[in-house]
Amino acid sequence: MTHHQIRRGAYYDSVVLMQLQRALSVLPGIHDAGVVMATPANLELLSANGFALADIVTTPDDLLIMVRAESDVAATEALAQIDALLARKRASSVDADYQHKSLAAAAQAMPAANWVLVSVPGRFAAQVAHEALDLGKHVFLYSNNVSLADEVALKQSARAKGLLVMGPDCGTAIINGIGLGFANRVRHVGVGDATGIGIVGASGTGLQAVTSEIHRLGGSITHAIGTGGRDLKAEVGGITALQALAVLAHDPATAVIAFISKPPSPDVAARLLDAARAIAKPVIIHFIGYPAPAQQLGNLYFAHNLRETAALATRIKNQEPRAKNQEPRTKSQESSAKSQSSRIEDQHLASSNLDSWFLALGSLFVRGLFSGGTLAYESLLALQVVLAPIYSNSPIRPEQALPDARHSIGHCIIDMGEDEFTQGRLHPMMDYDLRLRRIRQEAADPSVGLILLDVVLGEGSHPDPASELAPVIAEVKAKRPTLEVVIIMIGTDDDAQGQHAQIARLSDAGARVFHSVDAAVGFMAQAYPSHFKNEYPPVALSSLTASPNGLTAINVGLSSFYDSLRSQGASVAHVDWRPPAAGNERLAGILARMKRKS
Amino acid sequence: MTHHQIRRGAYYDSVVLMQLQRALSVLPGIHDAGVVMATPANLELLSANGFALADIVTTPDDLLIMVRAESDVAATEALAQIDALLARKRASSVDADYQHKSLAAAAQAMPAANWVLVSVPGRFAAQVAHEALDLGKHVFLYSNNVSLADEVALKQSARAKGLLVMGPDCGTAIINGIGLGFANRVRHVGVGDATGIGIVGASGTGLQAVTSEIHRLGGSITHAIGTGGRDLKAEVGGITALQALAVLAHDPATAVIAFISKPPSPDVAARLLDAARAIAKPVIIHFIGYPAPAQQLGNLYFAHNLRETAALATRIKNQEPRAKNQEPRTKSQESSAKSQSSRIEDQHLASSNLDSWFLALGSLFVRGLFSGGTLAYESLLALQVVLAPIYSNSPIRPEQALPDARHSIGHCIIDMGEDEFTQGRLHPMMDYDLRLRRIRQEAADPSVGLILLDVVLGEGSHPDPASELAPVIAEVKAKRPTLEVVIIMIGTDDDAQGQHAQIARLSDAGARVFHSVDAAVGFMAQAYPSHFKNEYPPVALSSLTASPNGLTAINVGLSSFYDSLRSQGASVAHVDWRPPAAGNERLAGILARMKRKS
Repeated sequence: MTHHQIRRGAYYDSVVLMQLQRALSVLPGIHDAGVVMATPANLELLSANGFALADIVTTPDDLLIMVRAESDVAATEALAQIDALLARKRASSVDADYQHKSLAAAAQAMPAANWVLVSVPGRFAAQVAHEALDLGKHVFLYSNNVSLADEVALKQSARAKGLLVMGPDCGTAIINGIGLGFANRVRHVGVGDATGIGIVGASGTGLQAVTSEIHRLGGSITHAIGTGGRDLKAEVGGITALQALAVLAHDPATAVIAFISKPPSPDVAARLLDAARAIAKPVIIHFIGYPAPAQQLGNLYFAHNLRETAALATRIKNQEPRAKNQEPRTKSQESSAKSQSSRIEDQHLASSNLDSWFLALGSLFVRGLFSGGTLAYESLLALQVVLAPIYSNSPIRPEQALPDARHSIGHCIIDMGEDEFTQGRLHPMMDYDLRLRRIRQEAADPSVGLILLDVVLGEGSHPDPASELAPVIAEVKAKRPTLEVVIIMIGTDDDAQGQHAQIARLSDAGARVFHSVDAAVGFMAQAYPSHFKNEYPPVALSSLTASPNGLTAINVGLSSFYDSLRSQGASVAHVDWRPPAAGNERLAGILARMKRKS
Repeated sequence: MTHHQIRRGAYYDSVVLMQLQRALSVLPGIHDAGVVMATPANLELLSANGFALADIVTTPDDLLIMVRAESDVAATEALAQIDALLARKRASSVDADYQHKSLAAAAQAMPAANWVLVSVPGRFAAQVAHEALDLGKHVFLYSNNVSLADEVALKQSARAKGLLVMGPDCGTAIINGIGLGFANRVRHVGVGDATGIGIVGASGTGLQAVTSEIHRLGGSITHAIGTGGRDLKAEVGGITALQALAVLAHDPATAVIAFISKPPSPDVAARLLDAARAIAKPVIIHFIGYPAPAQQLGNLYFAHNLRETAALATRIKNQEPRAKNQEPRTKSQESSAKSQSSRIEDQHLASSNLDSWFLALGSLFVRGLFSGGTLAYESLLALQVVLAPIYSNSPIRPEQALPDARHSIGHCIIDMGEDEFTQGRLHPMMDYDLRLRRIRQEAADPSVGLILLDVVLGEGSHPDPASELAPVIAEVKAKRPTLEVVIIMIGTDDDAQGQHAQIARLSDAGARVFHSVDAAVGFMAQAYPSHFKNEYPPVALSSLTASPNGLTAINVGLSSFYDSLRSQGASVAHVDWRPPAAGNERLAGILARMKRKS
């Protein structure tokens, strides 16, 4: 039986909502619980998760709490505990001394603060961000659902004041060694001469993947500056990206700059590249899904993918003469960097070892369930070569569009960070609930052979993803031992979650863990060999090369080709060709076609 | 004074036309001569070259001969010699024993011939090619202006017979060590176990660039199979490319395959990649101007550009275990490969050496005059990052379209192998006449600072490009010493033109010579530094990092971000944010906006 409660116009931090849902779902006699702001998207998700919504009338500002229980009594008792549970959750971890009722009050109490993090619901976020700018603070604007017009107004205002607005929808930044939003713990360098790598990214998980990989390769980060995903649209004009490039250009600790983004508008790309060329430092560019114009253009280096972006930045930084002197890399540092990947599948699959990776997935489908948009994009970009057709709620080509993100078809890549999954709830990097449900849903589909997941560790993310994921993976593997689970793990050895322990636990549950999209997709490419069958008669190799050396040919046309073939030692006959029926070519053509047909 | 003669419906091999034009232009008292089939495009070019065409009435099937002379007498005397000159040119170099009146006769006389090269005018070419297929021969179809329908019919017919049709508009192939059409002399391997590189290319100069570079890197070619530029269009479906991949897959001498093409249709790309994945050999893929889906997917490796395609193929071939055993590379081989580039600008411009390359071209324009379409495309792809706006008669983006290919504007890349320059005349790799005129035209424009040229050596090309180019380069440099001439030279040390001598002569005339688009454009990127000016107040680095270690921030929204910042050692104040005027957000928003405005 399903019971529900509606709290009209009630606002709770989505952390609180998640905690309430978890608390309700473990009460005695409760099978499942749902706690959401009653937006249309959330109602659809509840319905897809088996909650009956008939007769429930809500507005998007209402808090809807549902429980499915073994009895009416259990349901009623659970709902009766809501206030107590909320009261307990509200007893925040925030020290009372540092807790304020308004931004103005907080700014007065802590005048040294020069950053404001804004993660309030989107429709209020621009207002709060403007207030922060008016107080002279930089803004990390995590909130999404901020209008493009508000974004432009905020960024123009910030630029005029010499302030940064990172976002809206900015997931990640690392400023002076401190991660904002979702961020991995990486080696930081803030002072001294040019030994660090600075990064600008219009992609949150892209920034996380690149900073983590640089750390794995032994490099240090100065700052990683997020811009929000729309910064490179024509309307915004890359305001934050251009400011960020200028910051890193002037930062004496930054030796090399990396710049990553989904495809920008051509005009904005041109301005950004022009700005990057004006910097007296190497700049690694990765426009995801865009053709690289060259390998190198002066100080610009173009990368294929996130992993190569990190590798190039690290390599070029190590080639910079100043950096070399400052930071001689010892053998022990190198071996420590390598030893981290003990339980990780080797990323560089030597071609001679490929046979052992071979999986017989036949015609079973891949279902990718992603928390990181850029990881989903990069996976789709590569997998579309191997798996066709493939569908997505973030398609690269129109024909890949998935009609309903809640129901996979065929091979499918789902970005669960998209709006339809995140309204009024925590990001899927924090809240695994929807992904766990979806894993079970996909695993129950006998046409599915492989589930692909990303697990992003670091600040802001779930404190222990394996604790939730591993049991579900073990559960679905127990039911279908041949089901493959492949994980792309973004994280570092310093992340609070304990990367080693996470990998160990996920591996023990039966997942295969990789450190990059590149490595995971490379593995999957082996699992899905080509189905190509050439149904036509082969061209006999011997017919190409009838003579043991060289060639025997007839030349019809340019006499210079005859000369060339002869000079190379080929046997050649020449036809002194003239137009048939000279002067009446049309007639000649008709005659020839008639001749062929007869 | 200009005199002319029209020969109605006369057909001559375009080699003969070029030779007649050259012979006329050096007669006493003759300033200039033009000998063309009177197509509209050719009449426009004559007119652009200063020939008065008023009152001349021709059809495209007529041969038009024009001379501009110092006197009527000189002009009349020159035209009177046409028949004698033509008779001399007609005395072909072809040995009478190997000369035939028809393809059938040639095939009967030389039954071992399994290839037919077709370079007759496009409207007759399909007919000749069908005849060759009916005789059981593979076809190298150099002719252009063959309809797409004819191409499909030819290729379907060939496929059914187990034969190849390379082309139409196929510029290059190397079969069993023999170059067809335009091709460079490269190390060949035809027998033995897997020590060679086989190439499939829907791009003639692309094939030349890659085969030459592989040779320079010490590698050997098995076969280089051209497909014609339209093979990967949806209508043709990559018939030849798929056949060619199958040939190389089965060729025991081929260890590694490289595949290059301009962007194919997505469906054809999918089929090709699927076919390539079915091959038990590494395949290097370069879809020019397309985003690479990954660095590596199983046996597929994706390259950025032509040079990297060659480098990857060579490197991976050397990693193949069998190849390693067969062909241990000695030190002396390596140094000999390196010593070839003595007079060539180093392709890998170390960033520390960049200052010496700096040119002050300021706002002067680049004019690129190309004989190779793929080199033009790759140059435009890279230069559009450095030079904006840039125009072309083969634009990548619509806004780059050049209104009139005969007249450059701004920065400009002209593909002189396009139809408007080649109707009824030899390809610009053979006939430098139009390029020499255009070089003078561009050099006379004071807004031009750099002329970019390609020079493609090898079979089929001009026997001595430097003999024509160097004097014109020296001439324009004498008039304007600051004018830069940059040359991309495609060729090998074994090419008949003598690459060393060509480079020496062009360098002595004042040109800078590079071996790849990549290297030439990299050099030019230095010559055109960024004009970027940031007109906005900078973001003070100190304001990002007020505290020496870490960060001081105010968090508005998710309490988990407060926890995260604290755990990283940052100083944080938290605002316990609630929606303003809870339950009436719209009103609250309006109030807030009113407050900000006041």
